[in-house]
Amino acid sequence: MQDQTTAGNLLRSMRANPPLVQCITNFVAMNIAANVMLAAGASPAMVHAEEEAGEFAAISGALTINIGTLSAGWLVGMLKAAQSANDAGKPWVLDPVAHYATAFRRKAIAQLLELQPAIIRGNASEIIALAGRASRGQGVDSRDAVEQAEESARQLAQKHQCVVAVTGVTDFVTDGQKARRIAGGSPFMPQVTALGCSLTCLVGAFAATTPDDPFDATVTALTVFAVAGEQAGAVADGPGSFSWRFLDALAGLTPETLDRAARISAA
Amino acid sequence: MQDQTTAGNLLRSMRANPPLVQCITNFVAMNIAANVMLAAGASPAMVHAEEEAGEFAAISGALTINIGTLSAGWLVGMLKAAQSANDAGKPWVLDPVAHYATAFRRKAIAQLLELQPAIIRGNASEIIALAGRASRGQGVDSRDAVEQAEESARQLAQKHQCVVAVTGVTDFVTDGQKARRIAGGSPFMPQVTALGCSLTCLVGAFAATTPDDPFDATVTALTVFAVAGEQAGAVADGPGSFSWRFLDALAGLTPETLDRAARISAA
Amino acid sequence: MQDQTTAGNLLRSMRANPPLVQCITNFVAMNIAANVMLAAGASPAMVHAEEEAGEFAAISGALTINIGTLSAGWLVGMLKAAQSANDAGKPWVLDPVAHYATAFRRKAIAQLLELQPAIIRGNASEIIALAGRASRGQGVDSRDAVEQAEESARQLAQKHQCVVAVTGVTDFVTDGQKARRIAGGSPFMPQVTALGCSLTCLVGAFAATTPDDPFDATVTALTVFAVAGEQAGAVADGPGSFSWRFLDALAGLTPETLDRAARISAA
Repeated sequence: MQDQTTAGNLLRSMRANPPLVQCITNFVAMNIAANVMLAAGASPAMVHAEEEAGEFAAISGALTINIGTLSAGWLVGMLKAAQSANDAGKPWVLDPVAHYATAFRRKAIAQLLELQPAIIRGNASEIIALAGRASRGQGVDSRDAVEQAEESARQLAQKHQCVVAVTGVTDFVTDGQKARRIAGGSPFMPQVTALGCSLTCLVGAFAATTPDDPFDATVTALTVFAVAGEQAGAVADGPGSFSWRFLDALAGLTPETLDRAARISAA
Repeated sequence: MQDQTTAGNLLRSMRANPPLVQCITNFVAMNIAANVMLAAGASPAMVHAEEEAGEFAAISGALTINIGTLSAGWLVGMLKAAQSANDAGKPWVLDPVAHYATAFRRKAIAQLLELQPAIIRGNASEIIALAGRASRGQGVDSRDAVEQAEESARQLAQKHQCVVAVTGVTDFVTDGQKARRIAGGSPFMPQVTALGCSLTCLVGAFAATTPDDPFDATVTALTVFAVAGEQAGAVADGPGSFSWRFLDALAGLTPETLDRAARISAA
Repeated sequence: MQDQTTAGNLLRSMRANPPLVQCITNFVAMNIAANVMLAAGASPAMVHAEEEAGEFAAISGALTINIGTLSAGWLVGMLKAAQSANDAGKPWVLDPVAHYATAFRRKAIAQLLELQPAIIRGNASEIIALAGRASRGQGVDSRDAVEQAEESARQLAQKHQCVVAVTGVTDFVTDGQKARRIAGGSPFMPQVTALGCSLTCLVGAFAATTPDDPFDATVTALTVFAVAGEQAGAVADGPGSFSWRFLDALAGLTPETLDRAARISAA
């Protein structure tokens, strides 16, 4: 991040010109991800079919791809969209949900990685496994701590020349050289399904706003989640009330509050 | 509308005999649309597969089709369902989400329009583009005002001999001759994803209740949304709290309150 | 149930070792079902594709299959997953949503039943129709009372050597010999879409926790819903506020409160 007003400035820019973001995400995340995007100020479009995914990627500001509920037909659309985003010079973000769980996923994630995402966001188990190490992930849930994934994240970022974000209690973002930790959020967040998937979409929104700086875009999206999550968590009674309070917090978050409440540190 | 109690009477009739409505809608809208239908008093069924969509349309009171997350396989089911609804004399409602965005969508919407929907509901950009004019829509979001779409709506209604509804800050409904404007709602509504898609389903519920009067059915559904939206908006703190308060308002809305709070004017 | 602490003990065990449950459910239920599972303490994974559904079932603690938004491709994945669960000795739960509505569904449910689910959960109309009797179901909604489905449930349980649960105002569970009724819940529950589908997933979580006792697993899951539903219903103002309060209640439910508030009776 350039300085302590980068996140606030990017939030201001994003809202001033809401980016169209093509989100190819899973069935669990579709609704909450769209609501997160609208609350934050972006313009999401869930377009996945192979007949149009590539054409749509070319007119979008950014693309996000999440393999949570993968199938063969959807994978075709994902590959076409990623190729089209590359051809059009648009950044795309990869969310490798449980990519280690089956042979089908392992093959799919290898094909997607070849198309050079600008940013990869995952939980610790996903990032560790993506770097070729032994992770303890179960299904879609991480059983590793973010700290254990930092070295894997740096390796991945260098190998694929992209930004890698590991999200958890304290998030970690690196481009292979510099790195940041982002503190905040709430213990309720892992109890609400698909918030990580929704965050991937929001990373896409900021990447569309500042396509030449995927690192700042990622740090900003994660900081927005950390601050709004902390606000919502302070008044929620459980995961159900957290969920709608988080959307209210996202919508009400000002650039000034974002910069003031941000807890970003060099790593 | 016949008089100032038409909306209330239709709401009463709908609830007294909850219509089975087949909703072929998008993945983002599925859950909130079903919840809107149940809260209002209807009986939704999300049935889309080509193997059964036609058979199911024949036993439903009405059909709604929304192309938000279109794919080739789903389009086959949509076409079969619309044909079957026509054969069985059941009204069907078309929601042409972002139909202008890709060649795949433009072709699909042309095929669907040939099957003569009883009602079309869209945002201003969608209706303007559907009438063959230049719109400013971006992705699934309108960037045109409802007023700018009124002439397009009248033309569409005459050409396709159907009712056309344009929803936005103040809604507009026409059958090509008479027209109504419906005021109400809340600025939070466009910040909650898929409320327009959910409204399309509710239009289907009222069309099932009064199949011979798609104009009154449409005006009533939009008025229910306008009044419940206004009630929820008055006490909500953001899009997250608006969403559940809107469902509570829909469920608690009485026919008497609906008629008293309705702001319907001739246009 | 062994005694009055069985439900509480199973809830404690389930949370101490959150089971990975593969949930092949419908598009309407995906999000709320995952949130219900996380709030209760389980680890859901929505994995359906034919390329991986079987492989994933073998590594899951249990499998649940719901045909709400069935299609030909998904049916292939369901059949592969159920076969794989059987081969691996893992219990699987069947939710026969509106199986009577079309020829496609009737054929699919016959194929699924041949793969011997450990547990079937449905509403009264679904269970009556599954036993080959005349039901009054409309679309996905029951129009029969649970009491009217008790004999059908006993027959089904004996014929398929499984546990059958009929849920409604007061639930009924039988293994063909013994039976229990579970009282509780809230009138708001049928106004919130996909809570029954979500309950099916939770039945899977308890079946994974105690695979040799599907009867106790089912009674426990239904009791968790009955108690949390009653708590949420007592403070909700409508189906919208019920929904998030229910998630809060699930997350906050202690084993002690569960046992104290349970209203389970022999039938």
